[in-house]
Amino acid sequence: MIKVDISNVWGQLTLPELLATEKDVAAAHMTLTQGTGEGNDFLGWLDLPKTEETDEMRRIRLAADRIRENSDVFVVIGIGGSYLGPRAAIELMQGVNHNIGKGKGNPQIFFAGNSLSTRHWNELQRLLEGKDFSIAIISTSGTTTEPAISTRALRWMLERKYGTDGARKRIYAITDPCKGALRQMAGEEGWETFVIPPDVGGRYSVLTAVGLLPMAVAGIDILKVMQGAAQAKKDYDLRSFENPVWQYAGVRNALYKKGKVMELFESFEPGFKMFGGWWQQLFGETEGKDGKGIFPVTAELTPDLHSLGQMIQQGERNIFETMVRFDAPENKMVIGEDVKNLDGLNYLAGKTLDFVDEKAFLGTVAAHVDGGVPVMTMDMGELNDAKLGEMFYFLELCCGVSAYILGVNPFNQPGVELYKRNMFRLLGKPGYEDK
Amino acid sequence: MIKVDISNVWGQLTLPELLATEKDVAAAHMTLTQGTGEGNDFLGWLDLPKTEETDEMRRIRLAADRIRENSDVFVVIGIGGSYLGPRAAIELMQGVNHNIGKGKGNPQIFFAGNSLSTRHWNELQRLLEGKDFSIAIISTSGTTTEPAISTRALRWMLERKYGTDGARKRIYAITDPCKGALRQMAGEEGWETFVIPPDVGGRYSVLTAVGLLPMAVAGIDILKVMQGAAQAKKDYDLRSFENPVWQYAGVRNALYKKGKVMELFESFEPGFKMFGGWWQQLFGETEGKDGKGIFPVTAELTPDLHSLGQMIQQGERNIFETMVRFDAPENKMVIGEDVKNLDGLNYLAGKTLDFVDEKAFLGTVAAHVDGGVPVMTMDMGELNDAKLGEMFYFLELCCGVSAYILGVNPFNQPGVELYKRNMFRLLGKPGYEDK
Repeated sequence: MIKVDISNVWGQLTLPELLATEKDVAAAHMTLTQGTGEGNDFLGWLDLPKTEETDEMRRIRLAADRIRENSDVFVVIGIGGSYLGPRAAIELMQGVNHNIGKGKGNPQIFFAGNSLSTRHWNELQRLLEGKDFSIAIISTSGTTTEPAISTRALRWMLERKYGTDGARKRIYAITDPCKGALRQMAGEEGWETFVIPPDVGGRYSVLTAVGLLPMAVAGIDILKVMQGAAQAKKDYDLRSFENPVWQYAGVRNALYKKGKVMELFESFEPGFKMFGGWWQQLFGETEGKDGKGIFPVTAELTPDLHSLGQMIQQGERNIFETMVRFDAPENKMVIGEDVKNLDGLNYLAGKTLDFVDEKAFLGTVAAHVDGGVPVMTMDMGELNDAKLGEMFYFLELCCGVSAYILGVNPFNQPGVELYKRNMFRLLGKPGYEDK
Repeated sequence: MIKVDISNVWGQLTLPELLATEKDVAAAHMTLTQGTGEGNDFLGWLDLPKTEETDEMRRIRLAADRIRENSDVFVVIGIGGSYLGPRAAIELMQGVNHNIGKGKGNPQIFFAGNSLSTRHWNELQRLLEGKDFSIAIISTSGTTTEPAISTRALRWMLERKYGTDGARKRIYAITDPCKGALRQMAGEEGWETFVIPPDVGGRYSVLTAVGLLPMAVAGIDILKVMQGAAQAKKDYDLRSFENPVWQYAGVRNALYKKGKVMELFESFEPGFKMFGGWWQQLFGETEGKDGKGIFPVTAELTPDLHSLGQMIQQGERNIFETMVRFDAPENKMVIGEDVKNLDGLNYLAGKTLDFVDEKAFLGTVAAHVDGGVPVMTMDMGELNDAKLGEMFYFLELCCGVSAYILGVNPFNQPGVELYKRNMFRLLGKPGYEDK
């Protein structure tokens, strides 16, 4: 199980203060699992985990096999949760450079439709030059501006390259089961489709086809991912402060009450960056409303100890940190001995890099705690496909509970519409002229 | 010239409030350029820009030519400013996927020595398999743990592969001109060296060989970069609120006084992410001390409007935004017309993607200002090699002025040492046992 260590928050929080929140935490957990709170029509994600392969999962696996076989490149079109979840999974499991050295049999995976940058679009054109490719369009509605623009263009590229019939076999739509423009298009064009259940919001969708199809194309075992999530559903249902969900959700809210307005979610793995981005959306979009919410910031240690480190150590005391740890991989790097020892490193000769990493972690915790920054650590254990599913489910659960403690609806995002309305008016979209 | 637009901060700040800071801003600028403030032994960066190729720049260019000719991969070893600057430059100019499709003649560029992650190290091993490569070691001292560990291992890999003589021609050291372990090693081993001037701190070092050698290997014209910086040195010396340096430094400090404790530095270009990381170190490490400092956060729009957007729009009102804009590239993407128009996008047919991007930007500013978030925009103009140099110099200048306004030493980082001391003690480094 994931271990949350809260032993380094006591400088800023007392045990009685934490225990005083027990009732609120228990109530929030109950509200979430019993579906009695605001936003309770978006609780479908609670029941997504599966212990055996479903028909949908089988179709995802077969589609992934086809894509791996006939494509050098797989382009995933989506924005928000339809982008962050799959990218987080792939980069965490395979590193940020996973696309280098890939090709047919194990296609490169690029993400599109998450930006309005012309440079980004031109770069994708370069990456697709002369390549066999397939696309997945991920959108509940099919009308969100960024992905819709990319969809038109990429779909036509496929049709020019393979003909309408050939293109049809290279386009996958992940969308609402019944309604929406994308569902209709897929029906008319004969694209294979997968489902985003209507009771699962974007930022909670990674364990649907949204995340699973890209993961499967990357070669991740999605049955193991789902089984890890199913195990998490059981393991983290415990109703006491022994549940790491309670510890994390409880402590962060207690710290927020004491003026800690920012959480730094940090890992020591470069591949974790996009997972941090997924976490940032999950918590930021869930909690940032009604003038409230801890601002979620991600960082990568040790690099950021040489940049943000100074600010964390001695800046404003309005932050706390959550450090994510993984067991080291089996393939170790051992530091060698140098006869001249000009760099003074021989005291580490024979030690492994992860030994040094562990000491850097412990030294950092001690330094930041001394500096007045509460630190939680989240020890994930071994990183594998099942753990990935467990982490997603665990953090979604933490987020739902945390938001109910804070007293906001965890499942809406009323503020996201405002910039869109302005944009549509400026673009002259029919129906928005007067707003 | 770079334009800073402060017209969207007036909801949170009055003109008299800003003008009241004029004396402080003027004094800070004077303190910086006259070298009369704290940390004034680290002002060498003010005079780095050049209008003509120096001997050092010529040697950098020739070394880059050799590396491009004989290497599939160039590994840059460094941490902090020795990592963020060069990576920021290359990703901004060539995109995050710049390494895909590169090889001899135009080598891939990877960064090492910035992490203690075994996974990161193993990934680099995979990327180097069967490849001809060269390395640059960037370190003032040569004893910083992360880069020193990578240096030992990569140097030995080169020696095994090419023999001592062959390896010697593939190792470049960028370090102090006289002292330190790396300087001594380079002398004994016969590596070509470049200089980090002793009066230039890590986060202000991008316009030395630290940034210039990697840029040159990537094919960026470093003379143009330096000329852009030299022009910036002239252009931004103006002593009035017409100077965008004054506007940016003045407004951010005035907003900080009004409780805006976090700055979101945002761009609409995916390639900007690491440049944001460079900015984050520059400002975070410069200002985060004595219990003060605006916490620097980076974001990428529009993707983050579909994640952090909710929090920005309706969360705590303790933030402000700085949005960075570039002119669109010449090669446009035009949105096509679809007969069926199921996605409802035909109202945009014939329009370019950057037209939509511009409206999204304007719509976002309006929405966030409505929501109570002050927004500055920084219009960089056309993105080219000279602009890159201009941006670096401009932001360094802004940062120095801003820190003197805040009343901190812009050029030290006393807090960064604390975690290292703990780490050394835990690692049993000689001399640290008792601390």
